[in-house]
Amino acid sequence: MAEFKIDAKCSESSARLGTLLINNQKIKTPVFMPVGTYGAVKTLMPNEISSIGYNLILANTYHMFLRPGIDVLKQSKGLHNFMNWNGLILTDSGGFQIYSLKGLRKIEDSGASFQSHLSGDQHKLTPENVIDIQRVLGSDIMMMLDVCPSGDGSTKEWENAVNLTTKWAKAAHEYYKSTDGYYNKEQLLVPIVQGGTDVYLREKSASELLKLESSIYAIGGLAVGEPKEEMLESVAFMDTILPKNKPRYLMGVGTPVDLIENVRLGVDMFDCVMPTRNARNGQLFLSDGPLNIRNSKYFNDHSPIDEKSTSKMSTTFTKSYLHHLFKTKEVLGLRIATEHNLHFYFQLMKKMRREINSNNFMKWSTKVIDNYRRDSDEQC
Amino acid sequence: MAEFKIDAKCSESSARLGTLLINNQKIKTPVFMPVGTYGAVKTLMPNEISSIGYNLILANTYHMFLRPGIDVLKQSKGLHNFMNWNGLILTDSGGFQIYSLKGLRKIEDSGASFQSHLSGDQHKLTPENVIDIQRVLGSDIMMMLDVCPSGDGSTKEWENAVNLTTKWAKAAHEYYKSTDGYYNKEQLLVPIVQGGTDVYLREKSASELLKLESSIYAIGGLAVGEPKEEMLESVAFMDTILPKNKPRYLMGVGTPVDLIENVRLGVDMFDCVMPTRNARNGQLFLSDGPLNIRNSKYFNDHSPIDEKSTSKMSTTFTKSYLHHLFKTKEVLGLRIATEHNLHFYFQLMKKMRREINSNNFMKWSTKVIDNYRRDSDEQC
Repeated sequence: MAEFKIDAKCSESSARLGTLLINNQKIKTPVFMPVGTYGAVKTLMPNEISSIGYNLILANTYHMFLRPGIDVLKQSKGLHNFMNWNGLILTDSGGFQIYSLKGLRKIEDSGASFQSHLSGDQHKLTPENVIDIQRVLGSDIMMMLDVCPSGDGSTKEWENAVNLTTKWAKAAHEYYKSTDGYYNKEQLLVPIVQGGTDVYLREKSASELLKLESSIYAIGGLAVGEPKEEMLESVAFMDTILPKNKPRYLMGVGTPVDLIENVRLGVDMFDCVMPTRNARNGQLFLSDGPLNIRNSKYFNDHSPIDEKSTSKMSTTFTKSYLHHLFKTKEVLGLRIATEHNLHFYFQLMKKMRREINSNNFMKWSTKVIDNYRRDSDEQC
Repeated sequence: MAEFKIDAKCSESSARLGTLLINNQKIKTPVFMPVGTYGAVKTLMPNEISSIGYNLILANTYHMFLRPGIDVLKQSKGLHNFMNWNGLILTDSGGFQIYSLKGLRKIEDSGASFQSHLSGDQHKLTPENVIDIQRVLGSDIMMMLDVCPSGDGSTKEWENAVNLTTKWAKAAHEYYKSTDGYYNKEQLLVPIVQGGTDVYLREKSASELLKLESSIYAIGGLAVGEPKEEMLESVAFMDTILPKNKPRYLMGVGTPVDLIENVRLGVDMFDCVMPTRNARNGQLFLSDGPLNIRNSKYFNDHSPIDEKSTSKMSTTFTKSYLHHLFKTKEVLGLRIATEHNLHFYFQLMKKMRREINSNNFMKWSTKVIDNYRRDSDEQC
């Protein structure tokens, strides 16, 4: 059975160091999960992901349901085999993706109907069948279907989202208990707290979901367009009502500084496309801030990508070469940038874990946040 | 000094096994060179190229002259450093590329003027300055500037090409002898025999170039649109007039069967974009012929990419997964296909070397050619 153990706590913030054990694999928290929407962390091989240090990645149920579909995934005995990944996989349910399909989807009490953006076919995801799909995927951590409105939605929209998310969570929980997986492994089911940035709704959502006594709680509906300060206030509030002895997963966050600030607020798990997507646009995360390698000032700059980093990419390639690869549209450039950024994110989480362990986290994090340039010298 | 030693000869054809020593690195011939036009073999890291077994790649002088330009390459102390490649590099001079720029270029006695397809700037490549550029690149093997008309050109066009290529070759040779490289290394200069598929012109071109007593002779102006049979006849003719004790490099060839047929005709060196470019279009070279992985029949085919291959990509990924990556436009698919194809080409050359060594080459090659499906099940 999955276990979560808190190994150390920061005395000045809610930050904590933990170990999450699932299917005989240990995840050190706080942890960042690289995003592999379609069963591939873009541009990289599975062994490269694990060489960086990652043993937990995210894939997307909605996208894998559409392509390649569950027949192929059943034949391959799950996503781990399909993509040849030996680590753990968390699968997002697709609530966020479906809600974004404005005009193509219909949210009903029984689930979310939508038209495939690929084939035009009609599909329906329900609290129950997203579990079936994730059973086939063999996800180690399955996310419940939720309703995820945007951060600038109305309170009424948020309230409806909370109500339906709660209803779906109860149905999902019942269904989950009555079914088994395909691969003789544990598959955790995680509810998602909604409520926008409204304290009353967040409390309402959490209090209902806590009754399910799940092993992990996710904070959804943030980093979806609301002001940064309101996001942080909402997470700070969640910290006061979510159980301390269970991992909290803040979905879709974020920048290096976002990660530090939310670890302070007691968040244990993160995922975000930022290190991988921004890499493909030329944005590299360096020790003192981001840069955009397409900027002409790197044309003849033969220094390592990040002089303060031991990243394999930094010690192998120069800024000038990477600039050249981006200018000539060489795919190798996307790989180098992606591997570099995922290395940076992994090392950042590792550093946070060390600083929490030595109870130096607040001092360290204050200094890092003060010194970190938040903006690239060129927009992505 | 560079050396070429013939280690074994086929008793039934002109095929030979050899060792070419340049700058303390040994190249076993017949050899295939992966193409890295812009200083990157598309999608792959330098260490992946060498892991497959390659220690000689091709880059293009014309393209690197335009991007990133010689200032950057001089600063980085040559292309090997720039791209972090420890093997050898042959650089094509750009004659072929410039000749293709119809309307944008002017061929004169003194060189080829052209307008950059990128910036619109006017440039001129001469027999002398392409050596200067390749000196900066630090190429181990430098190709002379040549005039390369298409395979369906007129005899008059081919004759003019031979005359000017000869004139340029003499100027290049003189200039080469009077200059030194930058990096204290040997840089071979290779003339290119032209003449289309005309025996008289081929002989004329070769007899002039042989006076230069170069270490390697290239056969240019083939695989540029002429019928396959005429190409093979021309190479067979070249075999009778080029010195047996020097490597022959057939430029821009070819398919797996082309390589076998031309090794029979005494060719020692090849380059071609086919394994890398076709990979990016989904064409994979397998032991018994090519296939196109985008074909829907691979959608749910969970067999290895090539069941008869020990390629790392074949033993790691299935056809179904690679099909999925192509359908979802994942860059990882381009990598897997490229690495697979370059592994296939390397193993094919290695197999040819073994069969020549055991004097079984004709028997082996006849069987392979008879059994190899030449066409993919889907066009690229």
